Order: sequence, then C-alpha cells, then structure tokens
Amino acid sequence: MPDPRFFRRVGPFTVGSLSEISGAAVAEGHASDKLVNDVAPLESAGADNVSFLDNPLYLSALSVSSAGVCVMHPERVNVAPDQMTLLLSENPYLAYAKIAAAFYPEANPVGSGEDNSFIHPTASIGQDTHVSPGAVIGAGTEIGSQCEIGPNAVIGPGVVIGDGSVIGPSVSVQYSIIGSQVRIFAGARIGEAGFGFATGSDGHFTVPQLGRVLVGDKTEIGANTTIDRGSAADTVIGQGCRIDNLVQIGHNVILGNGCIIVSQVGISGSTQLEDYVVVGGQVGFTGHLKIGQGVQIAAQSGVMNDLPAGGKYSGSPAVPMRQWLNQAAMLRSLGKKKVKKGG
Amino acid sequence: MPDPRFFRRVGPFTVGSLSEISGAAVAEGHASDKLVNDVAPLESAGADNVSFLDNPLYLSALSVSSAGVCVMHPERVNVAPDQMTLLLSENPYLAYAKIAAAFYPEANPVGSGEDNSFIHPTASIGQDTHVSPGAVIGAGTEIGSQCEIGPNAVIGPGVVIGDGSVIGPSVSVQYSIIGSQVRIFAGARIGEAGFGFATGSDGHFTVPQLGRVLVGDKTEIGANTTIDRGSAADTVIGQGCRIDNLVQIGHNVILGNGCIIVSQVGISGSTQLEDYVVVGGQVGFTGHLKIGQGVQIAAQSGVMNDLPAGGKYSGSPAVPMRQWLNQAAMLRSLGKKKVKKGG
Amino acid sequence: MPDPRFFRRVGPFTVGSLSEISGAAVAEGHASDKLVNDVAPLESAGADNVSFLDNPLYLSALSVSSAGVCVMHPERVNVAPDQMTLLLSENPYLAYAKIAAAFYPEANPVGSGEDNSFIHPTASIGQDTHVSPGAVIGAGTEIGSQCEIGPNAVIGPGVVIGDGSVIGPSVSVQYSIIGSQVRIFAGARIGEAGFGFATGSDGHFTVPQLGRVLVGDKTEIGANTTIDRGSAADTVIGQGCRIDNLVQIGHNVILGNGCIIVSQVGISGSTQLEDYVVVGGQVGFTGHLKIGQGVQIAAQSGVMNDLPAGGKYSGSPAVPMRQWLNQAAMLRSLGKKKVKKGG
Repeated sequence: MPDPRFFRRVGPFTVGSLSEISGAAVAEGHASDKLVNDVAPLESAGADNVSFLDNPLYLSALSVSSAGVCVMHPERVNVAPDQMTLLLSENPYLAYAKIAAAFYPEANPVGSGEDNSFIHPTASIGQDTHVSPGAVIGAGTEIGSQCEIGPNAVIGPGVVIGDGSVIGPSVSVQYSIIGSQVRIFAGARIGEAGFGFATGSDGHFTVPQLGRVLVGDKTEIGANTTIDRGSAADTVIGQGCRIDNLVQIGHNVILGNGCIIVSQVGISGSTQLEDYVVVGGQVGFTGHLKIGQGVQIAAQSGVMNDLPAGGKYSGSPAVPMRQWLNQAAMLRSLGKKKVKKGG
Repeated sequence: MPDPRFFRRVGPFTVGSLSEISGAAVAEGHASDKLVNDVAPLESAGADNVSFLDNPLYLSALSVSSAGVCVMHPERVNVAPDQMTLLLSENPYLAYAKIAAAFYPEANPVGSGEDNSFIHPTASIGQDTHVSPGAVIGAGTEIGSQCEIGPNAVIGPGVVIGDGSVIGPSVSVQYSIIGSQVRIFAGARIGEAGFGFATGSDGHFTVPQLGRVLVGDKTEIGANTTIDRGSAADTVIGQGCRIDNLVQIGHNVILGNGCIIVSQVGISGSTQLEDYVVVGGQVGFTGHLKIGQGVQIAAQSGVMNDLPAGGKYSGSPAVPMRQWLNQAAMLRSLGKKKVKKGG
Repeated sequence: MPDPRFFRRVGPFTVGSLSEISGAAVAEGHASDKLVNDVAPLESAGADNVSFLDNPLYLSALSVSSAGVCVMHPERVNVAPDQMTLLLSENPYLAYAKIAAAFYPEANPVGSGEDNSFIHPTASIGQDTHVSPGAVIGAGTEIGSQCEIGPNAVIGPGVVIGDGSVIGPSVSVQYSIIGSQVRIFAGARIGEAGFGFATGSDGHFTVPQLGRVLVGDKTEIGANTTIDRGSAADTVIGQGCRIDNLVQIGHNVILGNGCIIVSQVGISGSTQLEDYVVVGGQVGFTGHLKIGQGVQIAAQSGVMNDLPAGGKYSGSPAVPMRQWLNQAAMLRSLGKKKVKKGG
C-alpha cells in the first residue's frame, strides 16, 4: 500500500468502473460490482486490491498472488489463480496506469506545494539541528537531532531524516525515509518520479510512481546524483554505501550494504545489487538484474545479465575480467594489422 | 532574429566597423559603409543582417542565402552569391563571434538579474497556479494557470510556461518557451548557454548563444537533465517526449514528438531526432546528425552517422543490431582464445 | 597545510595518542611523545606533520619526504627515511583517515552553516556586483566587483571570487578560490568532498577532504557539472578552460590552461591534463594519469594509461586514432560474417 504520508488515495471503485476508466474488459462471468480499494504489486496485493501482469518475468508472482483483481492480456487468462477477477486488455500496463491514476489523481506532484512558509509549521525538527537560509521544509516532515540542512535544500512533505544526517546545499529529498548519519551532497535529487509510462495510441501515459526511497544509515550520496522513488515497491539503498557524483539510480533498484558506486554509473529500474558490490565509473546496468555479493565491475562496462557473487567483470557487454583482457589484447592486435580501408 | 524578450541588441554597425571589431577584412571593392542591423543564420538572414560560413556542411545554405553580409574564409569567395558583402578572415567563426558579441554585449548573462524581489512585479502568474517558497520569477515572465512552481525553482525573465505545467524543486528555466502540461523534475537546467566558442591565438572566445529552448506540450524532463538553448536558431523538444534524468541535450538539437531518451544520454549540437525515436541509457550522438523516425538505439551506443527511419542499432560506433550481435559473439569467442600476453 | 579559511584544526597530538586514535602501532624504538601539529601529504609535510604511504606510486615521494611522522604498512619500514617516526598498520589509509578526522573533527561539513542570514554580515561584496534573490553567501566570503551571483546560488564561507565572474542560478561553490571573469552555469557543484574513504572491517570510513578547488581566470564551467575539492592538495582548473555540462572532475585533478572538456566526461582523482587537451563527450579517465599537452581524445573513449603530448586517441581502452580506426573496420567486417549463434 502506498505510504499515506506521501500519497492520497481516492476510491473505492467497482471492477465495472475500473473497466470504464481503463478500457480493459471484465472477463466473462467475472463480477463487475466487486469493490476495489487500492492498487498493489502482485507480491503484496490483497483481496481488495488491483494488480497487473505485463512483464512475463512476473508470471510466477502471479501464480501465487492474492490480488483480488488483476489486469492482464487476454492470452494469459489461463495462468491466473481461480479467485482473481480479471480485467483484460491488449495493453495491460496502459490500462493499469489509468487505474492507478484514478486511485491517486494527485500522484506525481513535484515540489512540496501547499504552503508558503519556508519551514512548514507542522514539520518537526530535532535538537541541535541547524536549518540554513533558503531551505524549504514541507508539512509533516520529521528531521532528527544534530542534523545539518544546507542552504536552499528542499525537504518535501512527510520525509523522515534520522539523527546526525547532513543534507547539502540545493539538495532535494521527497517521498523518502533517510537513515541516521547519512550525508547527501549538493544538488542530489532523491525521490523524484521514476521513468515510468505506458505507450498507447495517443502517446505515452505517465504511470503514477507510488513508492518511496529508503536510505540506510551512514550512506553517502554524491553531488547531483539522482535516485528515483519506487513505482509500487520502494527503491532501497543499504547501509554504509558510498555513491559518487552524477550517478543515476532508477525506480525499484535495491542496493545492499556497503556498495561502492563510482561517478556517472546508471542502474536501470528493478536491478538489485547485493552487499559490497563495487561499480567503476560510467558503468551501465539494464533493468531487472541480480548482481551477487562482492561483484566488482570495471569502469565503462555494460552489464546485461545476472552475475553470480564474487567475480570481476569488464566490457560492454560485460564478461569475466580475464576474458575481457583477452578481447582487449585481440582487438589491439587487430588494430595493428593493415586493413583495406583503414585509417 | 534573436527573441527581444531575452536578448537586447545594440547597433547598427557599418561593415567597416564590423571589420574593425572582428579583424576580418572587407573584400576588395565591397562597400564599407553598408549598414548592418543584426546577426542571423544563413537560412534566415536578410539584406541588413550579417551571417557567417564556417562548417562546409552549410555551403548549400550559403548559395541560396539572402544575407546582406557574410563572414567567410578568403578561399570561399567564389561560392558566395553576388549580392553579398563579404568579410574575409582566416578564422571566420572567431570573427563572427566578435561581431555577435558587439551586437549583443549583454548576451550570455546567467541568472535573472536586475531585481531583488523573488517574484518580479511584472511577472504574470495564472489562476490557480501555486508558487512555492524560495522560487524566483523574473521580469516579464508569463506563467499559465494551474501550474506548480516548486520550491527554490528559478524562472528567468521573459520565460513563458503554458497551463498545467509542473516545475520541480530547484529547477532553472531561462530563455525558454514551455508548453502546457509539461513536467520538469528537480534540478533540471533548461536554457543555459550552449557549448559555443571560437578558438583564436589568445584562447577560446565565447560565442553569444542567441536562441531559445522550445518545449512541446505534455513532455516530461528528468531530474538534473540539461537542455542548452540554441546558438542562433532554437533548441526544439517536441510534444509528448519522455526525457529521463541526467541527459545532456546540446544547442540547436531538434527532437520530434514522442521521443524516449533514457538517462545519461548525450546529444551533441544540431543533431535532429524525428518522431518516436527511442534511445537507451548512456548513448552518445555526435553533432549535426539526422536520425529517422522510430529508430531504436541500444544502451551505451555511440552514434556517428545519420540513420534512416525504423531501424535498430547498437554499438560504438553504432551498427545495425544484427551486425552488432555478430560482433559481440565474435568478440566473446576471441576472448575465450588464449593470447600470448593475455590475463 | 589545509587552508584555515575552510578547515579548523585541533591538536596537537602526541605520536602515542595518534597510535591510540588510529590503531597503528608506534614502530619499535620510535618516540611516542613526539608532538604532531597537522596532517600533510608526503611532498609538503614538515617535521611536525604526519603523512601516510598507501599507494606504491608514492614510494619515491616517501624517500625524499621531510614528514616527521608517517603511517605505513610494516613491510615498508625499510624504505622510510631515517628521521621519520613510523606508525605501522596493516591498513595505513584507514589509520591515516582516523588521524585526519581527529585533527579536523568538523571537516566534511556540507553547507555554509552557522548563520541564518542569506548574506552573512562578514561577507565582502565588491562594487557593481549584483546578488540575486535567494542567493546565500557565507561568512568571510569575498566576492569581487562587477560579478553576478544568480538566484538561489550558494557561496560557502571563505570562498573567494574574482572580478567580473558570473555564478548561475542554483550553483553551489564551497572551499574554492575562483578567478576573474569565470562563468559557472546553473546547478554546477564546485568544492564538494571528493570520493575518499578507507575500508576497514566495519565498513567504509570517510577520509576528511582537506583541499580546495582553484579555478583560473576566464574559465567556463557547464550546468550541473561537479568538481570535487582536493583531498590534501588542491583540485586545480587552469585559465581559459571550457568545461561542458554534467562533467565529473574528481579530487586532486589538475587541468592546464585552455582545456576543452565536452559534456558527461569523467576524470578520476589525481589525473593531470596539460594545456589545451581536448576531450570528447562521455570519455572516462582512470586516476593518477598524466595526459600530455594538446592530446585529443575522441568521444566515449576510456583512458587507462598516460598519454604523451600531441596525439589523437580513441576507443575503450583508448589507443592511437589510426589503430582504433583499424579496430573499428575489423569489427565491422567481423559483424558482417555469419556466426553460429549470432542474431
């Protein structure tokens, strides 16, 4: 369930009205008058929630899901558990996006809005915490003790920041729960909406991003780095991580403890890094990967597959380091040969 | 003509004084006392404008140009239309840069300047638009109705923003015309000066950047992304585009409608993407390219050539996807061979 | 010696107490009661300073160092000059980090802190300098004449900015000395802490970053670019450089005069570029390199070795341009061959 500190839900809706909103058809014989209270991912959805199946990676999650209602492609009706009420669409992600937008019509706001004070009167600010000039702190925000909030930083409504954390100049933090002794450097953007949209015949439809960013204790996040909030589940950064400048971390990414992410790395949505993974500068990861504990990845690599714990990798596409050294040596020798139209 | 909302011109100048300012010589027999009112690109220059030719890509534009005056290399005198008054220089771009700086001595200002109020009294702000604390709105700015201007955002003088648009925390927008229902996420930088300079014997001379950024309706621009304004023409972003975080878009780039640009992509100056082009993360484009409608480019590719509509490409340099898959397979097999000094 | 404008030192400490603080053992027969006043790099340390040796690149610096005390691995005792008092640790960088944190317990603050005025009363602001709304200027800051400080910019305590410089909207500058006629575009982050930490058995320990950023006259720095301050020595950017948007420059990097750095380049710590080096977009450099005068590096290259003056390079790993053109031609021809499991 989206955190009510950040997201205001309306509803409930009947399955029939969700069908109208989304254009998805109620499966034959299924109950149109069933009441639905909220959206939820397959893993956590309950009997009064609506979920969706789009990416076949989630077929096994579907088979054990308790979701009362699910939006899916008509060809997948057979794999749904018996108790589910089905909404059928050729474009289930788009249909779901419209449903989520109906439950959360104000989702995807940008900025703390609502009020015109720099520090909202309902914000709670701990002892010996210093708030610098120009900082804007939203409604209901809870900031611990002995924190430093830098000049012109923006802490959105409902955000929680633990004791002894330092937020740099011009940082923005929204839709996030930040641990203790965290340091966030100037201009980092924590909790913006992830890159989520469904494409239909009239263009791209934005999918409400209803998750949060959770940052563990003693983690440091570099200047101008961006960490998007989750789409339904949360984006999670473990404890004691070191994230450098200008890094991009997509929605639903999970980083274990003690990970080291060098500058300009990009991690696509839903990829998971276990503890103590070390990533060199400018590396890119595609989405939905699992990278095992202690993996080390050389600068500028492109990671397109799951990687087991403990290895060293390099190259784009990334391969084991030894293999990449061979590739590089072969390329060097190719480059030294004469070619017909070369140089 | 540079938009007078953003750029204040002085002048006119005679061809003779432009010669003195720039160090370019008046071509033999050409009129030194001709009056020049403004700078303009070859395509749109009129009889009282001065333009320049540097990159040979623009030779055909020269041949049909109505520019009254043109700065060029002495070797290219023969290709100029008869009516043009010519200013000749070994370094025509540098000479032009000095002329443009004479016409626009205050160009390349940074910041809204002039005034000390957060919201300038001449700014117009539409109904039901909310301006958050710390936001700075410049002189003559026009913001539509039902907009949200986030905390500590900076909207420069003369900027226009359409109805229902949302500007995130700490965003800056300058020299730009923004459509309706546009969303710009935290820390994005819209309308900064492009990377333009001419190099002479005493170093790099900044070329005034006299264009704007135009953003179409319903486009979304990610956190900490940078979109530079045009140098003479405009930088144009179409309708319904989705641009992710930490993307760089150079001056004079043109994006069609519905383009999808994943995070950390860099698009160099004057490159054009037609409608519905999809670009994976960390891709780079060199300048002055034309990428056809619906082209899809895989993550980390390096695009160095024009691409016809509809294909899929990958690699650096980018090649058709099937060819890249072959390259990758060959590289993998090379990496598995023993080499003399490998790993 | 760290600049007292930016860093407040405590102490002195005896060698014995530094041993307790750091866990490093006093070498047998060495004096525990010797007084130490400060930390310093091997090159500049004096008789009352403590330095450290970790990276073997610095062995020759050790051999000629005047440091009174040095933290090092027990295996390297033999290479230390006779006058040095040695503190021995299996993890000398971690031991040094703890010592530096003892001397500078408030190091690594983020934000200007201390005061609640937008412009600190002790800041000095030159004639005809305009400070825009929302700008925050710290204690003891010195800003020259005819400068423009953009809306919501943050100039930290002790920073010096020369005449005629322009600081864009939402820029932050800390721990820095900025020359004259410098232009820094919106959202750039100058002087944040570098990516420095020592890893021990309980995770990563942040190493105080005690250097500055020095920026030469007439240099321009692009939007959302990040330049970290030095760790012990300074990060130095020469005169007349052009640095584009979203560039990352690590701690202790040295750029000569007139360098051109295109957008999204990343330069790792302690790498040096001599004058007039030209770097294409998205290039990455590993740390501790020396790149000779006038070298030109093509976009997306990965530079892993020192490069002599004047050449052109491309590829990842970067090789001479002619060789890379051959590699690219060979790859293209490989891609056109049939392979068993290709595409």
